[in-house]
Amino acid sequence: MSSKKRENNQKKKVALIGCGLIGQSWAISFLSAGYEVSLFDPVEGVTVQSKEKIKAKLKDLQNYGLLKHKNISDFLDKIHLAEDLSSAIAGCFYVQESGPEDLEIKKEITKKIDAATPYNIPIASSTSGIPASLYASDVKGKYRCLVAHPINPPHLIPAVEIVPAPFTSEVITQAVKKIITSIGKEPLELKKEIPGFVVNRLQGALLCEAFDLVKEGISSAEDIDKAISEGLGLRWSFMGPFQTIHLNAPEGIEGYVERYEKMYKEMFNKPDIEWASVLKLGLEEELLNLYQLREREKHEKERDNKLTELILHKIKT
Amino acid sequence: MSSKKRENNQKKKVALIGCGLIGQSWAISFLSAGYEVSLFDPVEGVTVQSKEKIKAKLKDLQNYGLLKHKNISDFLDKIHLAEDLSSAIAGCFYVQESGPEDLEIKKEITKKIDAATPYNIPIASSTSGIPASLYASDVKGKYRCLVAHPINPPHLIPAVEIVPAPFTSEVITQAVKKIITSIGKEPLELKKEIPGFVVNRLQGALLCEAFDLVKEGISSAEDIDKAISEGLGLRWSFMGPFQTIHLNAPEGIEGYVERYEKMYKEMFNKPDIEWASVLKLGLEEELLNLYQLREREKHEKERDNKLTELILHKIKT
Repeated sequence: MSSKKRENNQKKKVALIGCGLIGQSWAISFLSAGYEVSLFDPVEGVTVQSKEKIKAKLKDLQNYGLLKHKNISDFLDKIHLAEDLSSAIAGCFYVQESGPEDLEIKKEITKKIDAATPYNIPIASSTSGIPASLYASDVKGKYRCLVAHPINPPHLIPAVEIVPAPFTSEVITQAVKKIITSIGKEPLELKKEIPGFVVNRLQGALLCEAFDLVKEGISSAEDIDKAISEGLGLRWSFMGPFQTIHLNAPEGIEGYVERYEKMYKEMFNKPDIEWASVLKLGLEEELLNLYQLREREKHEKERDNKLTELILHKIKT
Repeated sequence: MSSKKRENNQKKKVALIGCGLIGQSWAISFLSAGYEVSLFDPVEGVTVQSKEKIKAKLKDLQNYGLLKHKNISDFLDKIHLAEDLSSAIAGCFYVQESGPEDLEIKKEITKKIDAATPYNIPIASSTSGIPASLYASDVKGKYRCLVAHPINPPHLIPAVEIVPAPFTSEVITQAVKKIITSIGKEPLELKKEIPGFVVNRLQGALLCEAFDLVKEGISSAEDIDKAISEGLGLRWSFMGPFQTIHLNAPEGIEGYVERYEKMYKEMFNKPDIEWASVLKLGLEEELLNLYQLREREKHEKERDNKLTELILHKIKT
């Protein structure tokens, strides 16, 4: 982030409610981008403890040269430890809640936050799978409630899922995307709510298969881990699953589906796999716009170069 | 690989049958490890063309400093283009077939290779999903037939699935693992055959979910790709799915399953998810042996360091 931009964030303060691992990581992300952070955890002692943990993680980042020319103390000065919810939120332009993953607790804390938060300030939850429709439908200011789900460890992983409920105001959603972008993260907006959102559904689908493979005695857990860490995960660290298969057939994704749809149908005994029809719903068009077939050789070369560089990087580290 | 080891591979020759992308990549892997390679493709012209393509890829690796002190010409001298199957196999201690992904073609070519290959020489197939039981059960020398499935692009990705059929000799399986290890790859041996093996089942499970998310209008393909390439794929480039979740709860995988099994059950509407019982089948014990809870902080620190280094690496490339 440019120093100009970082300056614009000066004196802007965000409220982070819930100071466990996730809340601490959010603090680091906002501090790194120049914001002030106001911390509060309802469990006694947690708010105060969190500052030490944030300091330790900031030191790690500093050792990697990731904090530019700043001193740790500059960041620590921007951490405000609040004694209650209202004083945590006062003066903040954004609230991020990172409480326990429990529907009833989520409902309760969101109501409390809503009551303490001025009109039109967004209230985002770090929940990894509970849609705002479920926890915020009875909240008075539900129009400014939505999910902003980071991935563990959130101060390092760029992707953040933005999941508005049908009742969330579009203005709020766009404002939250902008805030998330301003801290160097990659907001991924879901068009519709779904339990587990995108990240945990993708992870969950893979985990279901991984657990089944162990249950059926096909492979050790260690080898399943290596199938990812020495196999599929290498490409996936810079290229998603669709782009990967788009590059795995000379005719792009259409060719891949033509070749392999039958194999996957039989593999999973799922006759209802109809990838060819999903292509026609716009998937193929979207992929061809992103990664055109006439640039196929360039993309293939880029993939191979990135893989080679990643392998060299892995050897070194 | 040490020069001593590479010397031991000198004059040892492998036969690569099928010279498309996969066969070419195998050639590079074997050449890089010091072996001679003998190439043959039944389709006219393909054998000869493949040499130029191998040369181009070797140059890429050379530009990255991956070929050590060797010249391209040293490698090219070790490529033998055969005019028929028998002369390709003559004098080789290993045969790797990389023909089309079609059961009938696979059956036919395996029979021909078997007839041309001396007793006890392993015959491995690069098939990405057809078990040897299906294509080799009528082959006379089926005891030395098995799958050695690489991942595209195979000259760069380490993982290779080793899938013996029930009729494959254990001696052959171990010999093939040793050969695959000798070229710097990571052999992952399946304990039982299953269609799609491990790699494509893991990829396929994730793809099924990705296609469903597009079909249901939940997310764009681009954002699904980013959920992996800016999210889950970062950890997965150095740490598999089991280790990832083992580190995502303070109590290890048991705690993760206790917290999230219900969420996944509801998310996929799959009441038959019984991860807790799979843990008791030995999964938990295996993971606790690999990544002990008392070293949890060390593993967490290692993960965060590797992630930080990966992110710095991605910024540079």
